[in-house]
Formats: sequence, C-alpha cells, structure tokens
Amino acid sequence: MSKNIMDYETVALSEDGRGILIIDQTLLPGRTEIIRLETAKEIWEAIYLLKVRGAPAIGVTAAFGIYILARQIAEACGEKVEFQPFYEKFSQQKDYLNSSRPTAVNLSWALNRMDRVCVQAHENGKAVDEILEILEGEAKEIKEEDIRVCKAIGEYGLSLVKPGDGILTHCNAGQLATCKYGTATAPIYLGQEKGYHFRVFADETRPLLQGARLTAYELSSAGVDVTLICDNMSAMVMRNGWVNAVFVGCDRVAANGDVANKIGTSVVATVARRYGVPFYVCAPTSTIDMATPTGNEIRIEQRPAEEVTEMWYKERMAPKDIKIFNPAFDVTDNELITAIITEHGIARAPYGESLATLFRDRQ
Amino acid sequence: MSKNIMDYETVALSEDGRGILIIDQTLLPGRTEIIRLETAKEIWEAIYLLKVRGAPAIGVTAAFGIYILARQIAEACGEKVEFQPFYEKFSQQKDYLNSSRPTAVNLSWALNRMDRVCVQAHENGKAVDEILEILEGEAKEIKEEDIRVCKAIGEYGLSLVKPGDGILTHCNAGQLATCKYGTATAPIYLGQEKGYHFRVFADETRPLLQGARLTAYELSSAGVDVTLICDNMSAMVMRNGWVNAVFVGCDRVAANGDVANKIGTSVVATVARRYGVPFYVCAPTSTIDMATPTGNEIRIEQRPAEEVTEMWYKERMAPKDIKIFNPAFDVTDNELITAIITEHGIARAPYGESLATLFRDRQ
Repeated sequence: MSKNIMDYETVALSEDGRGILIIDQTLLPGRTEIIRLETAKEIWEAIYLLKVRGAPAIGVTAAFGIYILARQIAEACGEKVEFQPFYEKFSQQKDYLNSSRPTAVNLSWALNRMDRVCVQAHENGKAVDEILEILEGEAKEIKEEDIRVCKAIGEYGLSLVKPGDGILTHCNAGQLATCKYGTATAPIYLGQEKGYHFRVFADETRPLLQGARLTAYELSSAGVDVTLICDNMSAMVMRNGWVNAVFVGCDRVAANGDVANKIGTSVVATVARRYGVPFYVCAPTSTIDMATPTGNEIRIEQRPAEEVTEMWYKERMAPKDIKIFNPAFDVTDNELITAIITEHGIARAPYGESLATLFRDRQ
Repeated sequence: MSKNIMDYETVALSEDGRGILIIDQTLLPGRTEIIRLETAKEIWEAIYLLKVRGAPAIGVTAAFGIYILARQIAEACGEKVEFQPFYEKFSQQKDYLNSSRPTAVNLSWALNRMDRVCVQAHENGKAVDEILEILEGEAKEIKEEDIRVCKAIGEYGLSLVKPGDGILTHCNAGQLATCKYGTATAPIYLGQEKGYHFRVFADETRPLLQGARLTAYELSSAGVDVTLICDNMSAMVMRNGWVNAVFVGCDRVAANGDVANKIGTSVVATVARRYGVPFYVCAPTSTIDMATPTGNEIRIEQRPAEEVTEMWYKERMAPKDIKIFNPAFDVTDNELITAIITEHGIARAPYGESLATLFRDRQ
C-alpha cells in the first residue's frame, strides 16, 4: 500500500469514537499501516515509541486520547456517574499520557486545554455525559485548528515562491508531523494543488533520517518531484543554482527571531546565505516564545550516542568507546533568516519588533 | 586487536619480498586485520573492493604490486630470462592492475613510473635480475616519498595551530589513505608526538562514512582526543567556539585554487567562514592541476543511489524509486580557502599567483 499521503489522516478519531487511528511512522517508508489505539498504554507507547511524532500531531493524539479514556472512565462508573470520582481518574490518565514525552510542548498544552474545558463544563453545571460531548468537540477543534494554521502558513509561504521553483527542506515538518499539509511542506502541497511543479530537495537529516524516511516518502507519495540528498550536499545543489527557496519548520522561536530546529538547520541557513537563497522558517505562533530573549537561552537536548553509531545499521559503523556529540537541535541566528512565516502573517527583521507586533495584533 | 594505528603500515612489502601487506579497510572499525596479497587478482581486488583506498596508498600498492608480479614473471621464465617476453607479460599485468580503479590518478601515475624505470634500465643494458632490483628500489622510493610529502605537509600545517586547539576534519585524508601521517591528519599526528593535545572533531561523512569508520578509528587508536559528529553538526561546534582550524585533504586543486574534495567539504568551508575559523586544504603538489583553470572544469563523479538509500543499513531507509543525487565530491571556491598547504610550502590568495610560483620554485 503506497497511496497518496494526502488521502491519509496522520491522526483521526475512529468512526465509533472509541479509538484513535494513526499511521505507524516507525514502519515508514517500508509500509504505510494504519493502527488503532484504544487503551491508555497503547496511546502512551505510540507517542513514546515515535509511532506518532511531530509536536502538532502529538498534541492532537493526546487530545483524542484523553477524550476516549474519559469515555472509558465514565462507562466503568456505571449508570449514574459522579464528577469527582470521574475527574480523579481523568487526572490520573492525563498525567500518564503527559509522561510519554516530557519535552514536546504541544503534548502538555493539549492535555491542559482538555483539562480546563472539563473543569469549566463541570463548573457550568454540566453532567459527565455532557462533559464527554464537550471534550470530543474540543479535541476535534484542536485538530481543525492545526489544519487551519498549516493551511494559512502554506498560503503565506506560497506567496514567496513561483511555479517551477526549486525548494530545499530539512528534516520532516510535513503532513506526518501535523494533521494536514505540515508547516514547511504546506507551501509545497498547496502549490502542488495549483499545479506549480516545484522541484524539491529533501535533506536526509542525520542521525535519525526523518528527511529520507518521512519527507521523501510523503512528498513523493503526493506526486511531488522530490530528490533525496545527504545533508552535506546542500551547498552543491545551491551552487548549481537548483534551489530558489529553503523552507524549514521550527521547535521554538526566541523573541529576537533566533530559531531552534532540527540539528543542521543552521548549516542550511549559512549555505543559503552564501548562495543568495532565501531561508524561510515556518512557525505556528504557538512555537514563538516571547519569554525567551535569544537562541542562547534555548536548552539543546543531547541524544544517545547510539543514534549516530548504530541505529539503522547492519553493524556498528564507528569505533567502540568513541566520543560522540549528538545534539538534537541547533540554533539559527536571526540574521540568517529571510522571514518567519506564521498563520497570522510574515515577520521580517528586525524580529524583535515584527514578532512583538504580530503577537499584539493577534490578541 | 586495536593497537595504535601508528604501529601499523597501511601498505608494506613483506619481508620475503613476495607479498604486499595491507590493513583490510573494509573490516574497519570492527577489526584491524593485516592481509597478504600475492597474485595479480588479489591485488586488483584489494584496490577494486576498497580494502586499500586513498590515492597515495593505492599508488604505493600498485608499485609494490607490479614489482612482485615482475618477480613472478621472471621466475616463470626459467634460468635465462630474455627481456622481450618478460616485458610483454609485465605490460599485461600493468594494464590489468590499472583497470582496478580507473579514476584514481595515483594508480596510473605509479604504474607508469615503474614502467619507465623498467624500460630505462633495459636501455641501459641491465639484465632482468638487475631490473627487478631497480623496480624494488623504485617502489620503495615511491613509498618513502609519500611519507616525506605527508610529513612536510604536517610540519607546515602544525605551524598554523597551537597546543590545545580544536581541529575539525572531513572524510579520511588520514594515515589510512597514505603510507604514514596522512595529509589532513599530518598536523594532528605531528602535534600528538609533541604533546599538543588537540581536540579533534571528525565529520562522519555521508554517505560512505569514512569519517566515522576510518578517521575516528585511526585518530582514537593513536590516542588523539577525537569526537565524532554528523556532518550537519559542524555549525553548532563552531558556534560553540570549539574549533580553531579546519584541515581537509583534496582530490584535485585547480590553477585558481578551487578545490575538489569529498562531498560536503564546501559546506564545512562555508560554515567555517561564517564563524571566522581558518579553512586549510592539505594538498601534495601531485594533486595540483595547473591545466584545469577553475573548479567549474572539474568533472564530479556521480555514485550509485544505493550508497545513500541502503548501504550499511539493516533495511532500506528511503522510499523505493525515490530520486537520489549522490555526487562523490564538491568544489570549494578559492575565496573560502584560507591557505593550501603543500610539501613545498603554504600558498595563500591570490592562488593563481601563489600556486604558479610554488610550481616554478619546485622545478
């Protein structure tokens, strides 16, 4: 089965409302398999084991997850459900899901939002069966919001390129990381719908190869002209004049416009600057962190050495006991960023002002 | 067995003068195994299968190879050996060895040099048994020359750094690519002998991982403080201020100082420029090609897609039928190069003049 990725939903509530359907991303690109999650343990493991990944997709999975668990709790309570025993179990399950990946911001954000809605409905005098309906609606709204945000980013991004352009992207900020369109890939998919015929270059993105396994897979499944390259080939494709724009996603944007994203992003930005290629960061406003002044204050996660030396390999490809430096992210200085594309508009330097204005307008 | 690489010879003539001893580099970094080559087929396969690689090391293997084959030919001819039948078979074996890797310049260069010496000795009235002695001497001289060139490059390179410096290197231009010291690693090994305590960062060098498998291995075996990184981490280690100089090898230097080297070299040079880190190319004068005006005239070899999508992997890590761009080398523009270090001195911009002067002085 290798259908168009656009025909799949990364995360969906099952028709009977009792399960979550996700693409098991650990099987990609070899197999595209939809799996159903029902129990708390299944949901927790799917997030922990990266069967579903990408901050927005994790948030939506957690929202659907706590809703179906709430339904199970209510049913286990019998005919007449009291709020307090229901909410006690609800909170336990929420904490359990939240422990699956403590660093993903959207996970706790989505669970806290579901929690607030639950408490508020109770305070407004709703019974548990009414609260369940409200939770279902909220989870669906979180998903719809994600799709609207990605689509808006895609439309703003599309205004910056033209048909036939060469576009380079790094890692996977694609449909598989969100509910539809992705962030960095949104301009590509929207352009594809309009027949723009982009030529896309996907960095493989060592060490975990999200570019090779996920981005190359999803773009080619959608009929996009995509070429896979190793990360160290970006300068050559740009020197050859094949790239008109770079689009990347981001994990956090500091108030001054410095951007933390997958390791290697700042290399691409540096190379793009040398060859005069505009470098665009696609950032839902939820990733902009006005409380962090600059990139220097963003803590960079260090990951296990085995990702570099062994993972995916038939045999170890580095000497035993060799020292490894394996940061998951890096910081791209704002001066290398041509623009930051959000769902509310395009911010340009000086970012201290443009991001602040964008936030003021939004509120 | 995981001894210091400096205790091994990458290529050596066996004590009985009838075999070539090499480290089988396809087994690294898992096993350090010396294998003995005796027949033409064994020598051809060792080069073809990359058991010995690196232009200088291939040249020396070919020189020893044609010598031991010449000896076998002479012995097969019986008591009284005539030159003509001997030389006919000598030429056949030379052509055969030369077909093992047609793109490696040093292979044909070394074989042609051995051929010239053979013909010259005959013209000077030498008998075949005397010619064999002359061939043995010439092969040993090719090896000694390689060691002298690497050592001279190392001494010039060492003058550009200081104890405790951080040094980044890309791919393997190490002892395993030469007979001793390597080119890019020569300043590191000579510094190590003097107790300089460099902190070295080795790029893993996708797709074939020569940095992870060979450079990290040989430097750590020699007690050098080396940290392996993925290629896309270079900007982060330089942004952190951990790198004081970059040393790389090269495959060809154009007359204007543009340098063709392993894919990714120009990315490192671009990143180094941004962070103010000097970028040094270590180039035996045999790699400087005054007949090629600029890097644009250097043909870049394209390699099989499987190197990117499958090699070393447990399972394919990219979608089937995905387009792959897999250049083996890239060109680094001369303006990104701080200096080109040769065995005859250090050339700096403008390279058109400095390289020409260096060539004039040498002759």
